[in-house]
Amino acid sequence: MSIKKLIKQLDKLDTKNMYLNDFLLTWEKSADELAAVFQTAEILKAMREKNISSKVFDSGLAISVFRDNSTRTRFSFASAANLLGLEVQDLEEGKSQIAHGETVRETANMVSFMADVIGIRDDMYIGKGNAYMREVSKSVQDGYDEGVLEQRPTLVNLQCDIDHPTQSMADAMHLINTFGGVENLKGKKIAMTWAYSPSYGKPLSVPQGIIGLMTRFGMDVTLAHPEGYEVMPEVEAVAKGNADSYGGTFTKTNNMAEAFEGADIVYPKSWAPFAAMEKRTNLYGQGDFEGIDALEKELLIQNANHKDWECTEDLMSKTKDGKALYMHCLPADITDVSCKQGEVAASVFDRYRAPLYKEASYKPYVIAAMIFLSKFENPAETLEKIKKMDKNRIK
Amino acid sequence: MSIKKLIKQLDKLDTKNMYLNDFLLTWEKSADELAAVFQTAEILKAMREKNISSKVFDSGLAISVFRDNSTRTRFSFASAANLLGLEVQDLEEGKSQIAHGETVRETANMVSFMADVIGIRDDMYIGKGNAYMREVSKSVQDGYDEGVLEQRPTLVNLQCDIDHPTQSMADAMHLINTFGGVENLKGKKIAMTWAYSPSYGKPLSVPQGIIGLMTRFGMDVTLAHPEGYEVMPEVEAVAKGNADSYGGTFTKTNNMAEAFEGADIVYPKSWAPFAAMEKRTNLYGQGDFEGIDALEKELLIQNANHKDWECTEDLMSKTKDGKALYMHCLPADITDVSCKQGEVAASVFDRYRAPLYKEASYKPYVIAAMIFLSKFENPAETLEKIKKMDKNRIK
Amino acid sequence: MSIKKLIKQLDKLDTKNMYLNDFLLTWEKSADELAAVFQTAEILKAMREKNISSKVFDSGLAISVFRDNSTRTRFSFASAANLLGLEVQDLEEGKSQIAHGETVRETANMVSFMADVIGIRDDMYIGKGNAYMREVSKSVQDGYDEGVLEQRPTLVNLQCDIDHPTQSMADAMHLINTFGGVENLKGKKIAMTWAYSPSYGKPLSVPQGIIGLMTRFGMDVTLAHPEGYEVMPEVEAVAKGNADSYGGTFTKTNNMAEAFEGADIVYPKSWAPFAAMEKRTNLYGQGDFEGIDALEKELLIQNANHKDWECTEDLMSKTKDGKALYMHCLPADITDVSCKQGEVAASVFDRYRAPLYKEASYKPYVIAAMIFLSKFENPAETLEKIKKMDKNRIK
Repeated sequence: MSIKKLIKQLDKLDTKNMYLNDFLLTWEKSADELAAVFQTAEILKAMREKNISSKVFDSGLAISVFRDNSTRTRFSFASAANLLGLEVQDLEEGKSQIAHGETVRETANMVSFMADVIGIRDDMYIGKGNAYMREVSKSVQDGYDEGVLEQRPTLVNLQCDIDHPTQSMADAMHLINTFGGVENLKGKKIAMTWAYSPSYGKPLSVPQGIIGLMTRFGMDVTLAHPEGYEVMPEVEAVAKGNADSYGGTFTKTNNMAEAFEGADIVYPKSWAPFAAMEKRTNLYGQGDFEGIDALEKELLIQNANHKDWECTEDLMSKTKDGKALYMHCLPADITDVSCKQGEVAASVFDRYRAPLYKEASYKPYVIAAMIFLSKFENPAETLEKIKKMDKNRIK
Repeated sequence: MSIKKLIKQLDKLDTKNMYLNDFLLTWEKSADELAAVFQTAEILKAMREKNISSKVFDSGLAISVFRDNSTRTRFSFASAANLLGLEVQDLEEGKSQIAHGETVRETANMVSFMADVIGIRDDMYIGKGNAYMREVSKSVQDGYDEGVLEQRPTLVNLQCDIDHPTQSMADAMHLINTFGGVENLKGKKIAMTWAYSPSYGKPLSVPQGIIGLMTRFGMDVTLAHPEGYEVMPEVEAVAKGNADSYGGTFTKTNNMAEAFEGADIVYPKSWAPFAAMEKRTNLYGQGDFEGIDALEKELLIQNANHKDWECTEDLMSKTKDGKALYMHCLPADITDVSCKQGEVAASVFDRYRAPLYKEASYKPYVIAAMIFLSKFENPAETLEKIKKMDKNRIK
Repeated sequence: MSIKKLIKQLDKLDTKNMYLNDFLLTWEKSADELAAVFQTAEILKAMREKNISSKVFDSGLAISVFRDNSTRTRFSFASAANLLGLEVQDLEEGKSQIAHGETVRETANMVSFMADVIGIRDDMYIGKGNAYMREVSKSVQDGYDEGVLEQRPTLVNLQCDIDHPTQSMADAMHLINTFGGVENLKGKKIAMTWAYSPSYGKPLSVPQGIIGLMTRFGMDVTLAHPEGYEVMPEVEAVAKGNADSYGGTFTKTNNMAEAFEGADIVYPKSWAPFAAMEKRTNLYGQGDFEGIDALEKELLIQNANHKDWECTEDLMSKTKDGKALYMHCLPADITDVSCKQGEVAASVFDRYRAPLYKEASYKPYVIAAMIFLSKFENPAETLEKIKKMDKNRIK
């Protein structure tokens, strides 16, 4: 489709509530708003492919706050900021310290005098990450209202304890492109399943993000995990509600094979049990590091009971025509490659390497779209304008 | 006032000595030069508010050297550089090592082949920070004179052992805006007073910067601190000289209440005794780390004797109409918020939060103005030119 | 020479194989390609001196991977990227860990979605650095071929175990400018000699880069070192082959004075014995850290036997008219300045400081030229275009 047509379609979507607003959870966003993110991402992608510059900022900062190590998301955020003309400035805090109150309010304002956007990744402690983002958001909104900040920096959730919207939206874009349109996702079965990994405590934000988002498109979403690996009940409720509203289903099972049965898409990935993560947060709050160590040992023992939760060729053969799309947020724990026994068999991973990399490639555009829609009141108009200027990205 | 008028006023000021020169100490600068910084900062601010890009550099680096942790100054420098079109590149050195001689000369040149500006923060050791800046300045001047460097990178002092010009100039801009013009500062009483903080060894550059600068505007400057908390005698001499030349006063007292009496502005803040900091530098030079530990203990005991030096509501009520402007360079040690007992009562801090944040918001513009005036021979002409180009910062 | 003429000369050179290709070893490049790098570097330098912007990228990332500490090369790469309009994004990996296989392939793709260039410095282990670069190169080529990456990020070798092309090419540019043209290098004697330094394990890439490159210009290249300090035999073979093909000589000696005799250029510098470095790599591979310690001790003892390998005034007097050009990649170990006994006498170093700094100043332009030639199919045409646009770097 031509860029012109894509922009016309975008113009029909209602994005007015996105303007000067944050992107924290996909389920806070309307169907139009999600569609606008996909559409804007496609437009920015098409423009870049045609060597048209989409530098809508002549100057301005994109603040990044990473409270956990990150390479992929860091580069995706940097790519998105650069694509639009913003310069990334990292805010490095002590990693172990959960700042709050006065400190958050002050720092948020101090770094934002020329900040157009703030990207935050804070996924370490249940109950903390998203709450921190909302504290930062409130702080800069207050600063803007009081005339301290000349512009309202908008937030992008780069992963929190509850959701991972830039991941799930990029995943959805991958599905839309693979299946030829969001309308074709209706009725497709996606199996979001737990898988074994020797490492401990992987975040819940990916499975939660997937069940919270894919139920928006009328898909049949199955969540599979061993007993004891439940995700946050609030997010399960969101998924159930979505299924009802958008004409799909949300099913739970403790059987990996059942989840794979007839699936169009499989997403096998390790995560930590929600209840254990909540306990860990409390122990951390009490400064009980011995308790944390004990919990870790306990979880590793529990974990080792489920080594059979691996995405094997055998399981893949149970999927729709044996050809389900295999997905992962990467890096995956690949059996006999990155570990002795992991989430996925090497031959399965190998077969899907190119699609997996492609899946990841949407993230910079999704982030750029989220930024774009929060900073431009009439996004279609602005995109039309820069398209007409037809400035080359590379001379 | 219109941007056009602001530029006309700037054009009348003599800034020719600022061109290709550093900004190291406010008292090395003429009245015209200080006025030009305020004026340029106001113009850049007005342009940004009107969405006019002030990107005068199409490429170029702004080198930053932070020999102490810093978030606020780092972001202010990055914001200023970005506003003008320069990209920040951090020079990270071993923190504990005080480089000198050959190493400084060589490194200064090696990082400067495409550097337009160098911002340095080095406030840890008395007698070292400013001296280091002058060594870097001489090195790049030599490099420029010898044809090694194609351009002369100019220096901005982002805080040294003697002065903190970007802070004091931003503070002055806050006063100018609060009181409606620099002419209205004449005769106003500002109390730069010591305040108790549980932490040890805060730099002297803020009080020194304030008494060295505010005496330029005909203000009545009172410096208050407990006995033993003297600042550098050279800077006191500067303040006295300024008071004589510019028609104000410079008064010292060991009584906090006396300083607050009738004050229009109060600036209560902890700092370390100059003599002790000098002793510390010498011990450090001798590698006497036991001596440094002993000194620290001694100073903390001395410090604990002055917990009554707190900016309370009671003290505030003694100021002019009980409504003095409360200032701080942030972060402040707030009683019962950031510590058990600190520099300021929570209710006082709370009432002034918005003005305090506003105070800080001037710093990026002050830094940008210092850079601008050191790189453009005819700043008014250049500003007029970019204003006429009327390029939007945000499309 | 006018920029116009320089561009015309560039246009006659065959650079088509450089397009979308890497710059890993100078001896993989044709005479035309090396000439094109010098020519493009001169053009970019001339444009910058005339305040003409050479920002050919409106957005895009330059990824840097430094697997060893670096200030100079880091700043050179950042300067080059900035000059062309690319933003540097550092990829920080664990320093001790030599990534390979799946991890390299995945990471290389994950960081490259919007990367136009990747600069890598990896010089720590013999047999590893260059191999790693080729693994990254293959990974992004595959990603590009599979449609994962929209553009092919090209690699610049910022120093590996075998070659240091950005250093040797900058050194050659220094010689071309000092002697008034590449044609004047024919028959000139350059002494690449080992020199004593108290430190252990300096990379071989500089001497190897010099003998591998300078033999391309018909120079008489002498490699001098104590017995046991051999460089890689493959690179010696390259130097011999070049000497035969390009009408110069390649001579080896274990006598420093002999190397200096009648030399037009001397390049005295410490390096580690190749065989020992290879042994060290193997010990590292076996995790034998005791073995590494033992090897280090042995090498330091061996090293101490050669303190007389110093570039003294006496040795300098043996060179052509006593006035050979002294070169060094910096930082040098200067006797009685940076160490008790080092590579060069202080008076020699002092006399050549300005030329040494000048030598280093070519590196950003050389890197920019390498990037430029890998990203533009018709470099002369593109340079002509941006010259005509005549956009100022500084307003």
